[in-house]
Amino acid sequence: MSYTIGVFTSGGDAPGMNACVRAVVRTAVYRGARVIGIHRGFTGLLAGQFEEMTPASVSNIIQLGGTILRTSRCDEFLTPEGRAKGAAYLREAGIEGLVAIGGDGTFRGAHALYLEHGIPTVGTPGTIDNDLYGTDYTIGFDTAVNTALDSIDRLRDTASSHERMFVVEVMGRQAGFIALAVGASGGAEEIMVPECPSRIEDVHRRILEGRKRGKTSSIIVVSEGDEEGGALSIAEGLRRLGGLEVRVSILGHIQRGGSPTAADRILGSKLGAAAVDGLLAGRKDVMAGGVNGRIVYTPLPETWEKKKPIDEDLLRLNTILAT
Amino acid sequence: MSYTIGVFTSGGDAPGMNACVRAVVRTAVYRGARVIGIHRGFTGLLAGQFEEMTPASVSNIIQLGGTILRTSRCDEFLTPEGRAKGAAYLREAGIEGLVAIGGDGTFRGAHALYLEHGIPTVGTPGTIDNDLYGTDYTIGFDTAVNTALDSIDRLRDTASSHERMFVVEVMGRQAGFIALAVGASGGAEEIMVPECPSRIEDVHRRILEGRKRGKTSSIIVVSEGDEEGGALSIAEGLRRLGGLEVRVSILGHIQRGGSPTAADRILGSKLGAAAVDGLLAGRKDVMAGGVNGRIVYTPLPETWEKKKPIDEDLLRLNTILAT
Amino acid sequence: MSYTIGVFTSGGDAPGMNACVRAVVRTAVYRGARVIGIHRGFTGLLAGQFEEMTPASVSNIIQLGGTILRTSRCDEFLTPEGRAKGAAYLREAGIEGLVAIGGDGTFRGAHALYLEHGIPTVGTPGTIDNDLYGTDYTIGFDTAVNTALDSIDRLRDTASSHERMFVVEVMGRQAGFIALAVGASGGAEEIMVPECPSRIEDVHRRILEGRKRGKTSSIIVVSEGDEEGGALSIAEGLRRLGGLEVRVSILGHIQRGGSPTAADRILGSKLGAAAVDGLLAGRKDVMAGGVNGRIVYTPLPETWEKKKPIDEDLLRLNTILAT
Amino acid sequence: MSYTIGVFTSGGDAPGMNACVRAVVRTAVYRGARVIGIHRGFTGLLAGQFEEMTPASVSNIIQLGGTILRTSRCDEFLTPEGRAKGAAYLREAGIEGLVAIGGDGTFRGAHALYLEHGIPTVGTPGTIDNDLYGTDYTIGFDTAVNTALDSIDRLRDTASSHERMFVVEVMGRQAGFIALAVGASGGAEEIMVPECPSRIEDVHRRILEGRKRGKTSSIIVVSEGDEEGGALSIAEGLRRLGGLEVRVSILGHIQRGGSPTAADRILGSKLGAAAVDGLLAGRKDVMAGGVNGRIVYTPLPETWEKKKPIDEDLLRLNTILAT
Repeated sequence: MSYTIGVFTSGGDAPGMNACVRAVVRTAVYRGARVIGIHRGFTGLLAGQFEEMTPASVSNIIQLGGTILRTSRCDEFLTPEGRAKGAAYLREAGIEGLVAIGGDGTFRGAHALYLEHGIPTVGTPGTIDNDLYGTDYTIGFDTAVNTALDSIDRLRDTASSHERMFVVEVMGRQAGFIALAVGASGGAEEIMVPECPSRIEDVHRRILEGRKRGKTSSIIVVSEGDEEGGALSIAEGLRRLGGLEVRVSILGHIQRGGSPTAADRILGSKLGAAAVDGLLAGRKDVMAGGVNGRIVYTPLPETWEKKKPIDEDLLRLNTILAT
Repeated sequence: MSYTIGVFTSGGDAPGMNACVRAVVRTAVYRGARVIGIHRGFTGLLAGQFEEMTPASVSNIIQLGGTILRTSRCDEFLTPEGRAKGAAYLREAGIEGLVAIGGDGTFRGAHALYLEHGIPTVGTPGTIDNDLYGTDYTIGFDTAVNTALDSIDRLRDTASSHERMFVVEVMGRQAGFIALAVGASGGAEEIMVPECPSRIEDVHRRILEGRKRGKTSSIIVVSEGDEEGGALSIAEGLRRLGGLEVRVSILGHIQRGGSPTAADRILGSKLGAAAVDGLLAGRKDVMAGGVNGRIVYTPLPETWEKKKPIDEDLLRLNTILAT
Repeated sequence: MSYTIGVFTSGGDAPGMNACVRAVVRTAVYRGARVIGIHRGFTGLLAGQFEEMTPASVSNIIQLGGTILRTSRCDEFLTPEGRAKGAAYLREAGIEGLVAIGGDGTFRGAHALYLEHGIPTVGTPGTIDNDLYGTDYTIGFDTAVNTALDSIDRLRDTASSHERMFVVEVMGRQAGFIALAVGASGGAEEIMVPECPSRIEDVHRRILEGRKRGKTSSIIVVSEGDEEGGALSIAEGLRRLGGLEVRVSILGHIQRGGSPTAADRILGSKLGAAAVDGLLAGRKDVMAGGVNGRIVYTPLPETWEKKKPIDEDLLRLNTILAT
Repeated sequence: MSYTIGVFTSGGDAPGMNACVRAVVRTAVYRGARVIGIHRGFTGLLAGQFEEMTPASVSNIIQLGGTILRTSRCDEFLTPEGRAKGAAYLREAGIEGLVAIGGDGTFRGAHALYLEHGIPTVGTPGTIDNDLYGTDYTIGFDTAVNTALDSIDRLRDTASSHERMFVVEVMGRQAGFIALAVGASGGAEEIMVPECPSRIEDVHRRILEGRKRGKTSSIIVVSEGDEEGGALSIAEGLRRLGGLEVRVSILGHIQRGGSPTAADRILGSKLGAAAVDGLLAGRKDVMAGGVNGRIVYTPLPETWEKKKPIDEDLLRLNTILAT
């Protein structure tokens, strides 16, 4: 008797989701299971937008950004009635287990579905923000960082040519993973992340000190979730403190798209396969993550309840290297 | 007796300026002239920040964005007193003619310097905006378009995955050249440029009609100088008219930087050489541009007084191709 | 009564072919015509591999490299019997005119089809080599040049770090367009193209002279069709003449693929639309090209019989700029 | 009394070496040490090509490929006499410890220098090949993989359009790390690495089976050090076995250059700082590597004597995913 797996992507799209979908489908078929693709995340689940997938369905998609299954945010699924409806659709289609590719919102939904209707899910971490416990990196993070870094390199050309300061806002929600990686690799003079609050007066003072040492341009990378506010309010604060010509760049949605990096394609492939293997081995209500090069399954609630620390050593190192 | 040329970059930086500086220096030296680099545009001219340049000064810069000579905007040069001071510095340094790399502000300054002090200038069009008469393309335009296009391609991934609409604002000041090229190459459903005003109600209606025909996502490219306002006010207008989930992306300064494309490096090289040749042949108060593959020298005032038309055929074609 | 157009791509694939196919389909439908896609070029024509296309068939392809219609080289079509078979398939499908996207081989086939069977074709120049008379640029050329330039920039890093010489072979068949553009924009010390033969002894001497002036690395760009042979034989020759550590890089097929640049997407779009307009206006046995910003229709045989000159001014300029 | 550190890059250049040099210089100065840059690796060491470095010496280099210190291969240093000469130069310059950035050849030289002259070295793994024990990744590996992946994506466009097979040779010397990562992320049908020999008859059979299942194109990634020979001999073997149209692409030196990825810049920064910290803490004859996110110091001889295994799970997974 063959097992039937449903797979969907949900929440913000992330590069590498397609590599993960490809791995889910091909691993499942290789193991003798059937795969049903659910379109548009929970929205499609509540509308029965299902489609059988074969190895050929996922040909030539490993290099594509976004998600061929599409995605959405869905309010109705936040209600018990919505989830009951979804569970009914799943049973009707003979789907016995789910692979959910997304972030914490996706996992909360899947967890509720398990508690209320016993439907097993193995999740994979598909989000550029890297803000999930249970995996060193999330699928899409490496691509988003490199995309933002490309923008920083471009801004540095203008900053140097005009001897200006740029405050650059990157994504990351309440977490500073993107900001830290982009700032450290972009040679940013300052990195502002929510995990380690920095006072704007201190930032201002250090920038001015750098000017005295001969620095003629500078770049501050700030996470959208920073306590001092986003780039606009930080720039405003710096202008108020005086002595600096400040420009702002909010990178925004361009960080989500684009062909995934090698690392994201490989991570997506491994975790997609691991999710199928986990499901077939009876795992449920867990996320398949990569920790120190190994596959680790973490209970879904831990992925959002436990806090993955940022690399504070790197943040400290940056204050030395940005001299 | 050798001729001495001063070269500077001014106004907003543009990719390909360095290729142009390289061509100026090496062509001048090859022709037996001396070259003095003036740092920071008019600001450096008013401070005597001069430096002799040799072929080795411009080694390995053809691929760099920004400008090694740096640039600035300078209020003092807008005054007759400022220009008199600049002229004195030039005479003192023995500079007999200038190559000015920049946009219309740069050329206005150089023109005044010629009228008031007889200092000959041959300009080259260094601006991403392409808004100068007398050249088919300005140095930096092709790179800026391709950079913005890369962002559009990324946004399309997210737009498709989420079935959303994006309003994307690109640079261009009062001209729609960048918006048109980016929109047409990015497959944008709508392109809004100042030269051909479009009513927001019409845009809204056409987008909704596209939805009815099955289009699930759409991208509007708008020039920063558009009459209906920038991306934020257009998005606001579309939201008010209803029925659409709208996201905004303002690409901003990332369009200025980055390694220049082949076209910009070649154009910068040709025009830099043509500027030197023009100066040595006695030309003054003109810009060296490329028109239909030929070098053309246009009086500086014409470059900003005459209006270079955008490609209206392409704009019309886009309404067919974006079906 | 509606007109029916067949469209196909043939010969080597080139970035921008998909933009052209999109423009053909959408322009034709907009003008009230039907469009049949012919798969795999002449091979599919001889096998009746036809498929009706609608505006939706070409959604979201403008950014893709390669060709969704696929392509091939086809020996059978070189024979009168083959062409008679093809003509029969076309008549059977009700196809009244063809848009052929490809290079000179494609156009020779289409020309023979017209002479023998009266089938009208309007071609568009789809080849990275830029070796067709009747258009300033071919679709795919700009992308190929920028791809090769990216490789040159990478090789320059290694050449500088190791103080080495690289001989880099680029594509272009019997023409030096790619080599010239890549060499000039890449800052190559030497550019070897078939149109302007250079003796290897002279190249060797100039390189050694550059070393004496302080150049520690150098790059020679050579066209695959150069008279002195490709990169391998030139490197061999330079080694024999002594005094240089030489490395070879043959860029090969990577120059064909990848997402097209803005220029190639726009050119493909314009020429695709012009081909349809030409066909509907009764043109036949011609190629739609872009010359000085205008659409020009050139008889097919002229496209391969007349020789488009390379930009010898640029070649000469490079000897000055590569000082 | 301040400690004096010498830093150099040696062997093949790798992206991220400059980030590492920057970290060495700034960390050392921050810790109160002096830094002497040694040019051209061991060649410069034997010629006393030394230069004091300050934080400003390494401004704006984090994004550059290659190495500003230049590099070389040096036969003389392989002899005891050569090393004695080098040691004398080091003593004369007051250099008390070395940071050596390079691969196993570099480390062998540094180890001999330690054994014979007591000069302490802490190495950092700077090579694209990833073939060093004691670190999960080497500096430059991630960039090289993504560069090669970009080429694979381009070749896939042509392979799909022409329904062809490509055999693509990547770098890696005797190790298959690059081939595995590139193949797995590029969706290669076959990956041939020296660590896991594959018979060409089996490869041929699987490719033909894929064709029967409907695959119309395929890509084989092969490591330059593969037992079956490089791409040319594998292509020859496949052609001999029949039934396939095969093209070859040897990516070559383009894999070495280019602006480093975020991961390589961060790794280079961390290990550069760790090397200085190690040296100041009295470590010697070791390499600073990153293992499971921690800094680990490994005796230099182990880095080349112990064999770092490739990820065989990923290789197996690829046979499932490339279905």
